[in-house]
Amino acid sequence: MGLVVRSHDSEGSVTATDQECIDTIRCLSIDMVEAAKSGHPGLPLGAAPMAFTLWDRFLRHNPANPGWANRDRFILSAGHGSALLYSLLHLSGYNLPMEELKRFRQWESKTPGHPELGVTPGVELTTGHLGQGFAMGVGFAAAERFLAAKYNREGFPVVDHWTYGLISDGELMEGVCAEAASFAASAGIGKLIYLYDDNQVSLEGPTSLSFTESVVDRFQAYGWSTAEVEDGNDLNEIFEAITAAKSEPTYPWLIRVRTHIGYASPKQDTREAHGEPLGAEAANATKARLGWNHPEPFFVPDGVRERMGEAVPNGAAAEAEWQTLRAAYAEAEPGAATELEAVLEGRFPHGWTNTLPRFSPVDGPMASRDASARVLNVLASRFPTLMGGSADLAPSTKTIINGSSSSSQESPEGRNIHFGAREHAMASILNGLAIHGGIRPFGATFLIFSDYQRPAIRFAAIMQAKSLFLYTHDSIGVGEDGPTHQPVEQLWGLRSIPGMTVLRPADANETAAAWEIALQRQGPVAIVLTRQKLPTFDPEKVPTRSGALRGGYIASESGPDAPELVLLATGSEVAPCLDAARLLGEQGIPTRVVSMPSVELFEEQEAAYRQSVLPPGVPTLAVEAGSAVGWWRWVGTQGDVLGIARYGASAPGPVLFQKFGFSPENIAARAKALRERSEHGAEEPTESGTEPSES
Amino acid sequence: MGLVVRSHDSEGSVTATDQECIDTIRCLSIDMVEAAKSGHPGLPLGAAPMAFTLWDRFLRHNPANPGWANRDRFILSAGHGSALLYSLLHLSGYNLPMEELKRFRQWESKTPGHPELGVTPGVELTTGHLGQGFAMGVGFAAAERFLAAKYNREGFPVVDHWTYGLISDGELMEGVCAEAASFAASAGIGKLIYLYDDNQVSLEGPTSLSFTESVVDRFQAYGWSTAEVEDGNDLNEIFEAITAAKSEPTYPWLIRVRTHIGYASPKQDTREAHGEPLGAEAANATKARLGWNHPEPFFVPDGVRERMGEAVPNGAAAEAEWQTLRAAYAEAEPGAATELEAVLEGRFPHGWTNTLPRFSPVDGPMASRDASARVLNVLASRFPTLMGGSADLAPSTKTIINGSSSSSQESPEGRNIHFGAREHAMASILNGLAIHGGIRPFGATFLIFSDYQRPAIRFAAIMQAKSLFLYTHDSIGVGEDGPTHQPVEQLWGLRSIPGMTVLRPADANETAAAWEIALQRQGPVAIVLTRQKLPTFDPEKVPTRSGALRGGYIASESGPDAPELVLLATGSEVAPCLDAARLLGEQGIPTRVVSMPSVELFEEQEAAYRQSVLPPGVPTLAVEAGSAVGWWRWVGTQGDVLGIARYGASAPGPVLFQKFGFSPENIAARAKALRERSEHGAEEPTESGTEPSES
Repeated sequence: MGLVVRSHDSEGSVTATDQECIDTIRCLSIDMVEAAKSGHPGLPLGAAPMAFTLWDRFLRHNPANPGWANRDRFILSAGHGSALLYSLLHLSGYNLPMEELKRFRQWESKTPGHPELGVTPGVELTTGHLGQGFAMGVGFAAAERFLAAKYNREGFPVVDHWTYGLISDGELMEGVCAEAASFAASAGIGKLIYLYDDNQVSLEGPTSLSFTESVVDRFQAYGWSTAEVEDGNDLNEIFEAITAAKSEPTYPWLIRVRTHIGYASPKQDTREAHGEPLGAEAANATKARLGWNHPEPFFVPDGVRERMGEAVPNGAAAEAEWQTLRAAYAEAEPGAATELEAVLEGRFPHGWTNTLPRFSPVDGPMASRDASARVLNVLASRFPTLMGGSADLAPSTKTIINGSSSSSQESPEGRNIHFGAREHAMASILNGLAIHGGIRPFGATFLIFSDYQRPAIRFAAIMQAKSLFLYTHDSIGVGEDGPTHQPVEQLWGLRSIPGMTVLRPADANETAAAWEIALQRQGPVAIVLTRQKLPTFDPEKVPTRSGALRGGYIASESGPDAPELVLLATGSEVAPCLDAARLLGEQGIPTRVVSMPSVELFEEQEAAYRQSVLPPGVPTLAVEAGSAVGWWRWVGTQGDVLGIARYGASAPGPVLFQKFGFSPENIAARAKALRERSEHGAEEPTESGTEPSES
Repeated sequence: MGLVVRSHDSEGSVTATDQECIDTIRCLSIDMVEAAKSGHPGLPLGAAPMAFTLWDRFLRHNPANPGWANRDRFILSAGHGSALLYSLLHLSGYNLPMEELKRFRQWESKTPGHPELGVTPGVELTTGHLGQGFAMGVGFAAAERFLAAKYNREGFPVVDHWTYGLISDGELMEGVCAEAASFAASAGIGKLIYLYDDNQVSLEGPTSLSFTESVVDRFQAYGWSTAEVEDGNDLNEIFEAITAAKSEPTYPWLIRVRTHIGYASPKQDTREAHGEPLGAEAANATKARLGWNHPEPFFVPDGVRERMGEAVPNGAAAEAEWQTLRAAYAEAEPGAATELEAVLEGRFPHGWTNTLPRFSPVDGPMASRDASARVLNVLASRFPTLMGGSADLAPSTKTIINGSSSSSQESPEGRNIHFGAREHAMASILNGLAIHGGIRPFGATFLIFSDYQRPAIRFAAIMQAKSLFLYTHDSIGVGEDGPTHQPVEQLWGLRSIPGMTVLRPADANETAAAWEIALQRQGPVAIVLTRQKLPTFDPEKVPTRSGALRGGYIASESGPDAPELVLLATGSEVAPCLDAARLLGEQGIPTRVVSMPSVELFEEQEAAYRQSVLPPGVPTLAVEAGSAVGWWRWVGTQGDVLGIARYGASAPGPVLFQKFGFSPENIAARAKALRERSEHGAEEPTESGTEPSES
């Protein structure tokens, strides 16, 4: 539906205190930006009325317990308006003292430039990259729907909350936002209300320069319900629109609110109001125009303190009521209640690691994507909220949870999510699912398409969200689809993200270990899998599980003598290295193979262990069918890397492995050459990749 | 406008030869996929009629000269349907013999899995990542509009062609596509027609699983004109729709064509038809249902050969007519004609490098983004088609061409493009502008947002498109905006992309050199710039220009003695390294500073030069306010890297540089420790980053 709210539609009244609250929010925001000499005053001045209306009339939250599981979520997706959010949190009684507002954007303050999860009580998500908050909010709402469907019982709506957000025109230009919006409607996600701060100004000037579409029509085309508020200072209009949206909880809602950036300031309606301090003079002029009679900065009138402080007792009462409900639920539905508590706390089922499949060579060669599918399905039976899907590639990524339905409005308890060809939004939605709590989310696509997800992966890492990214088709092994589809620089690209863990297992048992690590690891994890088959190593001979748990380990020695060469490999390159080591051993060169499914885990081991695996002074050749860029740290300028320094090609995978030099014979030859060079003293690093051979 | 075309609207007739041509395209596509045992038969079977209609009735091209500047462009944005395109190219007389069709997806064939620019004559763009072709096509149309506005004269429409594309539902789910669509309408781009292959099946199943929006309504909301063809096998309907679109050249057009994936095959309308061979039996059944009576594969009936071969004389005639026009134009408008020829050939104005600004210390400290703005504006006066813009950050990225207007329908000759907050589409559109020819495009955003552009940057590199990416706000120097906005892993992330050149200049003169390199370099270039001020080095003492042209060079020696330490730095870290070297020199440790604005350029230098700059055996500390991941190659395990192994923080930039250890004092201390370690023999690499100090 498309609703246009105008003043004459409205009932109710706006009190002088309401207005004073709004102006306090505005003036605090001005003061913060002025004190920092940095920040964004424009959004808080324009959006304060809608934010106040939402927080005052609708938002159910408990400032004394920001972690209350059933709170409504508020996302300041337009994170540059952080001063607005900090003002709201402070005035609503969160543990964010005025001193912190005065230290806006300073070293180790609780009021950083953009909202950061874990830094400020009441901040639900790190935001600031346009569109990420919007998409993560869809994840919040999806989490709520799933948990409600799975755990609520007649008379016991223990999971029952809304997701609200405040979004900007810049965000609505971002592709991730478009993907998430289309997904939300297709998936029938409800209890999601976004207030669109339509101030018609973006950083370069009026939005007419670059953004002429009808946002409301676009959202209706997706299947959203919409409402329009023509006067963003009219609390009644805003109230009516949100009330209307709440009356239709099965749709996602976009409420367009026409506002004025930098409202009441001399820079109102100009791009200059967006991202720089007003300056003392303009700040004073703004306060004067607001009728603000308090010369000292950071002033909060008593009436405002009292009124907005009501959030504290109201929140305590709301949570207490819910605790009562939960206690009755626990009595009436002990099984569901126990499970809900366990999933909300992220507990592990007893003995779950023992149920992981163990593979042996008699299972035959197996693509690691297939091994992963088996592990996923075993784990899905133990972890009731392990859920996820793929960006329209589930049959290829092998990420279907058997026996569960597709997640949809008709089947909200379905654990298979059809994200569509929307890699970026998928990753953001995973982050929302993970941060919401209660869910263990995974999302799958081809490794090459991790490029589409970079901003969201980084957000997962910065928030330490337990988002699990499954990437298949991990190298030139993709074969015929060719260079566009063959990852080269993606592995090191992911490993470079601070706080990220990347696992590239070499066989089926390493794959099981990768899952075992992923579920326990802090922060986001990527498991990188093959399309092509890999041999399964004999776990009696190759300590795949215990080794993988340490990130890297000795997979084989070619003989009893101390190694004179080390082949360091990951994933599908471990097997040809084992063969190469055999060849070298036969030639009288004792050679060790090290499998390193996770550089990050290996890095965390004690130095003594690391040196026992990669002995200093022994020439080391790293072998990975991807960019060499990060391997030099581990092999040194005296070592060598057999990687790929160009793009792949379109041909059958085995042909490509041969042409790009990953045959056991070529690996052995390259390693031998390295050993000879190192005996004579290498002058400088060799080339980092290999060109396909002429033959 | 929204047009729905139905059969009864149509005039004209479809001949038996038309049908035979279509079925030949279908059968060749089947045969290619069967021969390769790999590929995507579904799209060619369903989309052959619209593709044939477009190529037969509308596309103006010259198979004998695929590089004809004024040809219409056809983009198979849905690149997985490559067999369709190769069939069309072969039958239309391009230099793509049947032998190549038989070698579909094989090593070094001209028929790779997805279309690749430069591999196959007539392929306009590398495609295959959903949405990239769509967005690059917007760049094609934008290039045409600009060149036409600038160079056409009354009676001489020497630049006058259309851009056509074939797109899929998967693409329409991608954010990059949404961004590009919204931009195209906002910018008033016309002469752009996309045929949407609406087969209602995606890889996971029916699109109803994940894609329930009304695409046509959405595109109308953007401001596109639309048409709908309800029977994708009806050539008259298709003809009418394209004709209608061509009658309104000022709008971008989306023509939705309802088709059936895997048409006529036993797998029709199922996801199984999408991406795997039909298999011999189903292939035969399909041919039988099409009434195809030729048992041998790769068969082309004579009538089809003749009819589709008409493209050769038609194309020759079209180009000849244009050459006549161009000759008359050259006579009538010699100035414009000469300039147009020069820009189409990418020629350089005589002596252009001499006009580059030279900076000296008296210019005072200057942010490299400001130096870049000065260089850009000088170059813009010499290169008439140097154009570009920013993703809604032009006032911050300093990328406005003074004295030129904003590009729009009203002012199509404007050289300042307002891309809006659409980083990904911007990058793709740059690629389209660059590949079209005639334009030197640049696009600017903050370095952190390069993450949003990764797929498009990679496409620039894979195609070796001369897209210039300007990235400002390049480190923790961003300051108060905090960790979300501070790049860490982005520098090495970009350097890891094969075929990409990254330049991070250390001062204003290195910035000028970076531009000088960028305009001449093959393939995409990123110039990475600061928000904060940097000292300007005395070019008499620091060979900024000549050094930068070699990628890396000796910026200073602390004294006459051979260096015992090397500090290797880029960008804003060069200046504190010069100070650190001074401190070390005073302590009796001869120290060299190497500035390395481009690792890629340095890597291309001869070994003797490289070793003269980075002498083997001298302990080297790399200093860069970003991830250390790739520096180990250059410093070795006996060296050290002062980088950042975590996220940044929100505080003033100078505070952060201090806290993160980039003060001259800390650099000197770290270097000294390295030298002492190396004298005693280092055991293994030290940690790669630094934690903020406690103080």
